[in-house]
Amino acid sequence: MFLAKIYVTYKPSILDPQGEVIKSALHRLDYTDVNSVMQGKYFEIKLEAKDQRTAAKEIEEFSDELLINVNMETFTYKLSEISSVEE
Amino acid sequence: MFLAKIYVTYKPSILDPQGEVIKSALHRLDYTDVNSVMQGKYFEIKLEAKDQRTAAKEIEEFSDELLINVNMETFTYKLSEISSVEE
Repeated sequence: MFLAKIYVTYKPSILDPQGEVIKSALHRLDYTDVNSVMQGKYFEIKLEAKDQRTAAKEIEEFSDELLINVNMETFTYKLSEISSVEE
Repeated sequence: MFLAKIYVTYKPSILDPQGEVIKSALHRLDYTDVNSVMQGKYFEIKLEAKDQRTAAKEIEEFSDELLINVNMETFTYKLSEISSVEE
């Protein structure tokens, strides 16, 4: 069993309105030393695969296909093998 | 300047309907070896602070106060010092 941690962020050229709103809210709460806020998505996905390479290929495929908007977003991921009994 | 990477997830006892929907969609796309999907949020926040300890304290405070719903969600974070000129 493999665990993939997938981090989805906006591409650098894309505006992140949610991040801007959160930054403004933090400033209003007096956290004025916050310079920038980027809000993205985070997925933890467990999957069966015969080896790490197969798992990686599958993750890259379905992330592009389903998890992200390829025009606006990009992703990175970390993959590790876990014991099947692990929760 | 510090960079905080903050990962927000549901507490274990809380249902994650979005994760379930994504899992079903992956199964329909024939990614049937996906066992579980958890969808959370991911923030990258840059802030000025006099030292790492001050930055950590601030991040813990404002995450509880603004970024998460403390009844349903929990968070972890990684903090690193970055050069101010770094993009």
